[in-house]
Amino acid sequence: MSDELPSRLEAVETPALVVDLDRLEANLDRAAEYAARHGLQLRPHVKTHKSSFVAAAQLRRGARGLTCATPREAEVMAEECDDVLVAYPPIASPRARRLAALPPTARLTVALDSEQAATELARAARDARREVGVYVELDLGMHRVGVTSVDAAVALARHVSEIDGLRFDGIAFYPGHIREAMTDQDAKLEALEHTLARAMERFHDAGLPPRVVSGGSTPTMWRTHEVPSVTEMRPGTYVYNDRTTVTTGACTSEDCALTVLATVVSTSVSGQAVIDAGSKALGREPMRGPGEGFGQLLNHPDVIVERMSEEHGVLEFGGSAWRPNVGDVVQVVPNHVCVAVHLYDFVYGVRGGHLERGWPIEARGRGRGSA
Amino acid sequence: MSDELPSRLEAVETPALVVDLDRLEANLDRAAEYAARHGLQLRPHVKTHKSSFVAAAQLRRGARGLTCATPREAEVMAEECDDVLVAYPPIASPRARRLAALPPTARLTVALDSEQAATELARAARDARREVGVYVELDLGMHRVGVTSVDAAVALARHVSEIDGLRFDGIAFYPGHIREAMTDQDAKLEALEHTLARAMERFHDAGLPPRVVSGGSTPTMWRTHEVPSVTEMRPGTYVYNDRTTVTTGACTSEDCALTVLATVVSTSVSGQAVIDAGSKALGREPMRGPGEGFGQLLNHPDVIVERMSEEHGVLEFGGSAWRPNVGDVVQVVPNHVCVAVHLYDFVYGVRGGHLERGWPIEARGRGRGSA
Repeated sequence: MSDELPSRLEAVETPALVVDLDRLEANLDRAAEYAARHGLQLRPHVKTHKSSFVAAAQLRRGARGLTCATPREAEVMAEECDDVLVAYPPIASPRARRLAALPPTARLTVALDSEQAATELARAARDARREVGVYVELDLGMHRVGVTSVDAAVALARHVSEIDGLRFDGIAFYPGHIREAMTDQDAKLEALEHTLARAMERFHDAGLPPRVVSGGSTPTMWRTHEVPSVTEMRPGTYVYNDRTTVTTGACTSEDCALTVLATVVSTSVSGQAVIDAGSKALGREPMRGPGEGFGQLLNHPDVIVERMSEEHGVLEFGGSAWRPNVGDVVQVVPNHVCVAVHLYDFVYGVRGGHLERGWPIEARGRGRGSA
Repeated sequence: MSDELPSRLEAVETPALVVDLDRLEANLDRAAEYAARHGLQLRPHVKTHKSSFVAAAQLRRGARGLTCATPREAEVMAEECDDVLVAYPPIASPRARRLAALPPTARLTVALDSEQAATELARAARDARREVGVYVELDLGMHRVGVTSVDAAVALARHVSEIDGLRFDGIAFYPGHIREAMTDQDAKLEALEHTLARAMERFHDAGLPPRVVSGGSTPTMWRTHEVPSVTEMRPGTYVYNDRTTVTTGACTSEDCALTVLATVVSTSVSGQAVIDAGSKALGREPMRGPGEGFGQLLNHPDVIVERMSEEHGVLEFGGSAWRPNVGDVVQVVPNHVCVAVHLYDFVYGVRGGHLERGWPIEARGRGRGSA
């Protein structure tokens, strides 16, 4: 295939990822302004975009550093950024070793929740002759990872502070249990601050004051300042947003910057149309309610991707009078943008309907030494 | 990273795809023997494995050719095989043009369901100075793609037979509406044969006898001979199998050849363990029943991946007494193997617990010119 970017969106081979550059930039600006206004450090999670291009745009707007989950994300982002947080347990020795092998110019911090993780990371850090910062991860209600008692968290912080190669830098949590609409988060945010404030006291009493309290997520990001203990936020999805983010009120549908470009390939079966974006192009991520489908057309919001095979998405017209022809090109807003991006290797950037540029998704990929 | 294959499975960086070579070969042998015994042409769908290595093994065992969905699959497989079927509407001109640009040594057939698709494909075929075979796709109950009346199918076949660049070769269907257990398929298989036999009569009467009747899918594959009109079968999943295939009875759990290798990264939250395989490593493909999770441990079948984030899978122990330690490595049988494979770039092949070889998943990938 040619290396030239097609001149028109219609000439892009589908399925493909398309980002509206005006919307992307507005999303980046809004987050940067919010963080600056409230004196919060913004350390965006790159899992959503997995791209150096977007990471650089975040850093230009003042992001404190970047957050990564996988070694590959960390390796790619360490080329762009000298302050990388890996918010994932550094378990299984190749993972800790790959992290410790990041360029020595990069400040590396890792969030972890077990002595074993600390021990493995410390060994890798010493072998690489570097010091690695550590956030002790707390479970504050999501029940995924994280130390579940403050006593245990303080004990782990003490272990970290005493072991060669590591440096205790703070505490981290992920408020993944707060998925309510923004306006319904009061009680849970209040409980969060209450728990954090008490935990902070205990850390101070133990002589281990956390320099950083790292939290945040896209659904809660605009209310982070209402949890005053938090000093750093790590939202990911806000760069592109998606249907799920719209339902939380953390963005409007006009803030959804990424769509999956798809072509109508069949209208044979009456009452529906089939596009070339199925589960291998959109991801099979459900909305909360039944019957909400797997994506929604940008320009015909009544029309949803009602069911999917691997390479087929079946459009249901809902209340729309729109009826497409075979060959028509549509843009689908995915339910969960992070999972959709993970399925592609390249993004097309458009402005005002014109293709302006494209960029690779360098940090995706799973395989031999690329997890 | 080193290009050397690790010597032990435990040294593979997780998450990773692992294929049991004995099971893979037994699955391939069984299908080849079944097709030969019943005089059926086997044209496996490569969407499941997307790998030249597995395609070559299918062809060595007598597969008539290969079935593909995407242009990239067709381009990769045309290097291995001189008889490629693209079972996907060739809509949007780059798609038809990429197919027509396959090596002229490859016999190319395309399944389609609209005059517009035939017209676009014919133009691309003529521009490439080749003839492309066509299967007219019928909807026999799945209601995805396919012409819905026999009259319309005959008319489309006539259009194909009269247009320069195309050759009418037969009819195709996908029995995706038959997802019952094998033993419960009688009524639907009988209805299928009844419809096909009547359609065949009409094609014969119209002077357009289909040379090929192409059907088949993994859930129905072992009963294909009970639908005597069918001459060619196109199963995909059977090479690896998965939890869903087990529920249909088309394989046993001992025939599941592919697992996702994962590491236990946290046991902080009591009553569960967290592995490094989430929705970006397993796919979020549901089983039929609720509470069945997104994957099952190969060696502890009571233990399922009960919920997932992008990079976390939460194991629920069910009736199992097994309790893992942080760092333990497990193998997860995915619900839907085709979607899991699409997330990776490389497969590790093991035999008797030893890593024997690995191979790339060349035909995956979505991006610039690679859909």
